[in-house]
Amino acid sequence: MSAKPTPLSGFPELLPAERFVEQQVIDRLRATFELHGFASIETRAVEPLEQLLRKGEIDKEVYLLRRLQAAGEDDDSAASTLGLHFDLTVPFARYVLENAGKLEFPFRRYQIQKVWRGERPQEGRYREFTQADIDVVSRDVLPFHHDVEVARVMAEALSDLPLPALRLQVNNRKLIEGFFRGIGAQDVGAVMRAVDKIDKVPPDVVKAMLIEEAALSGEQAELCLALADIRTSDSSFVKRVKDLGVENELLSEGLAELAAVIEGCSSVSTERFTVEADLRIARGLDYYTGTVFETRMAGFESLGSICSGGRYDALASDGRTSYPGVGISLGVTRLLAPLFARKKLTASRSVPSAVLVALPDEQSRARCAEIAQALRERGIPTEVAPLPQKYGKQIRYAERRGIPFVWFPADLAADADDAGTHQVSHEVKDIRSGEQAAADPHTWSPPAEDLRPQVVRPEA
Amino acid sequence: MSAKPTPLSGFPELLPAERFVEQQVIDRLRATFELHGFASIETRAVEPLEQLLRKGEIDKEVYLLRRLQAAGEDDDSAASTLGLHFDLTVPFARYVLENAGKLEFPFRRYQIQKVWRGERPQEGRYREFTQADIDVVSRDVLPFHHDVEVARVMAEALSDLPLPALRLQVNNRKLIEGFFRGIGAQDVGAVMRAVDKIDKVPPDVVKAMLIEEAALSGEQAELCLALADIRTSDSSFVKRVKDLGVENELLSEGLAELAAVIEGCSSVSTERFTVEADLRIARGLDYYTGTVFETRMAGFESLGSICSGGRYDALASDGRTSYPGVGISLGVTRLLAPLFARKKLTASRSVPSAVLVALPDEQSRARCAEIAQALRERGIPTEVAPLPQKYGKQIRYAERRGIPFVWFPADLAADADDAGTHQVSHEVKDIRSGEQAAADPHTWSPPAEDLRPQVVRPEA
Repeated sequence: MSAKPTPLSGFPELLPAERFVEQQVIDRLRATFELHGFASIETRAVEPLEQLLRKGEIDKEVYLLRRLQAAGEDDDSAASTLGLHFDLTVPFARYVLENAGKLEFPFRRYQIQKVWRGERPQEGRYREFTQADIDVVSRDVLPFHHDVEVARVMAEALSDLPLPALRLQVNNRKLIEGFFRGIGAQDVGAVMRAVDKIDKVPPDVVKAMLIEEAALSGEQAELCLALADIRTSDSSFVKRVKDLGVENELLSEGLAELAAVIEGCSSVSTERFTVEADLRIARGLDYYTGTVFETRMAGFESLGSICSGGRYDALASDGRTSYPGVGISLGVTRLLAPLFARKKLTASRSVPSAVLVALPDEQSRARCAEIAQALRERGIPTEVAPLPQKYGKQIRYAERRGIPFVWFPADLAADADDAGTHQVSHEVKDIRSGEQAAADPHTWSPPAEDLRPQVVRPEA
Repeated sequence: MSAKPTPLSGFPELLPAERFVEQQVIDRLRATFELHGFASIETRAVEPLEQLLRKGEIDKEVYLLRRLQAAGEDDDSAASTLGLHFDLTVPFARYVLENAGKLEFPFRRYQIQKVWRGERPQEGRYREFTQADIDVVSRDVLPFHHDVEVARVMAEALSDLPLPALRLQVNNRKLIEGFFRGIGAQDVGAVMRAVDKIDKVPPDVVKAMLIEEAALSGEQAELCLALADIRTSDSSFVKRVKDLGVENELLSEGLAELAAVIEGCSSVSTERFTVEADLRIARGLDYYTGTVFETRMAGFESLGSICSGGRYDALASDGRTSYPGVGISLGVTRLLAPLFARKKLTASRSVPSAVLVALPDEQSRARCAEIAQALRERGIPTEVAPLPQKYGKQIRYAERRGIPFVWFPADLAADADDAGTHQVSHEVKDIRSGEQAAADPHTWSPPAEDLRPQVVRPEA
């Protein structure tokens, strides 16, 4: 390698302190998912191209693979060509079908992996990024209460993260479809497409679209806009919808389901994290059939939804059996990379070490390694200084990495500012406060908050 | 998806219980690496092809990428073509150069990621597999004691894993090269190539190669074979080498270094895990310049080395500055996949849940969810039964997943075998022993060993 390499656009990489934050986020997600009984799986990075193209709409984004030396060796059919997965839903559906005989249903799984999309990179959109998905899938029938469950689990997970304020927005396709039918709309799809524009164009334009493209009357269009305007953080949306005077069985079912999801999440809401019914959320994707989720991060609205999902009546099907599911997918990179780029999130240090054992001279290395090992045996991340430099230099070594404590071995312990004294016991110095005290490597511990690097939010 | 998909050869996927074991292994590796101050990094999955081909020898194994819709759009030069990384060393070297100004040296990092190689799949060789690497890298000079450090850290990590017996074999290129020079060999490379065959062909054949291809005398060849025969789990190898009567400065340096590595690891050795000096280990790769490592797993010798590495004087170089390093790479998939395939390793259950809260009737779901939440708040993974079936059926639901405890809510608690009784307090049943007792969801805890799934070694 003879020149300094440059980053690849769309393939973000993290420095160690940022990576620590990412790991912390992933560990917390894992912990929450597992507390609720979700099992981890990972799927291979590749799928046959024909699997990846099932949905048609995303074909532009797929990265295809070929072996460098395989020219002419393989055929080029979609069945034998491999591509990198662009989400975790397609491979999960394939995994469920492939292993249906070995899985217990309902099957709760979480999956935290990288995915790849060959699209144009911009803030919040990457060519390689990490997703964290939870889904519950069953055979033939999946009771509705699992919708409440996945909402609740992801709400708990999100509320536990060191992030700007988040809003988890929930809606229900039965509710809106039932409402549109209830007002007499003939082309429900056209109504949905128009309502879906509501965040992008003024209400007047949406109204015109509803009249022209969905063949609604002015009054019907007003009702659609009134529905889309409803947003509540409790189940009071039910009364507001009912006050619009539309009657429909599917609407009633959707209202009851959405109320159950909102009530199931109510105890998770905090000032920084709210769950709300937002009746304008439609999720363009055709396969959602009930509950739908989106999530916005305060100050980062341009990222769009950073955590989305919903209920699908056929996650997978082998022709005879169908596998309904409900799930939600968090864009870990989409969330974190912009926060890192804007210096709004980092860690208190760039190394795991809580303690640097100072090295008086090279002959003392084995003795210093024993001290370090005594600390590690009690779970304290520790490193030994690489060189027997002056203690002032060794302290600066710790400072540059954010290591909070420097350990001075017995007999040779001497503060850098106090080079003449001769200590008979080990001493440990908090290099932030300058405080130094005698300590035993078999009993001393740092304060709990110093044991691991801390997530730091500079401007929060 | 209309037919049952089939596995892709070379891309192993795990069932939930196996994945739990893999996660446990990775978590333990992480914990050990971090205790020693190694920071996590991840690099992108792709590198420019010209980076990947720097070493020349492995070009056959690279997977190239192209975007499905990019035909004719990109040029095909090695500089702009991307390939999937085939190890973690090449991307790490690139990362170090790219971020040299932002990293603190010596830089200790660990990296646990998937890599891809398009080679023919067989047991222990996969097209997608996970590696766990640790390296220490510095600028210009990296003191020798880091060789001892990485050996020690990986030895601790390996000794902590639920695996068949392992042997970490260490040698030193200075030792063998110095020895070969000391006996008067002119073509040290030819000697190494012959000695490298020692595990594959009989000693006579190696001797003949040494005479014919490396131009050694019979006596010189015998000395080489005598050296390669030395294997000790302490530093007694030093005397055995000295007894061969060869004098060389590089040899002495290599002996001292190897002795230091073996002594540094001596306290980690157990019956199941040994560290030994093995003077036949050469590691074919040209870039190793001192310490070299390989690792064998008992009963799985055909896998070759499952954990290898060494010292390289120039991990990376930008022309002006060079970055020496020492590292070791563990093949996580290579290790685990054969153990899973032979049913030698699994987990005690397929879900994280330690407790299933039984559901007396659908109206009690909210009450049961509260019980589950009280348990989760104290870190106990818990799920609520999906359907209000007879308790016997709910117990079998837990059994099939390996969930050890079933919780019967107060008032409605009733053993399946005892359907007539009416309990006034919550009861929890260990479904393995059948023992059932009153319990409070705010204070009861399962035994520590039941809190998470356990790694199980059926035949160990």
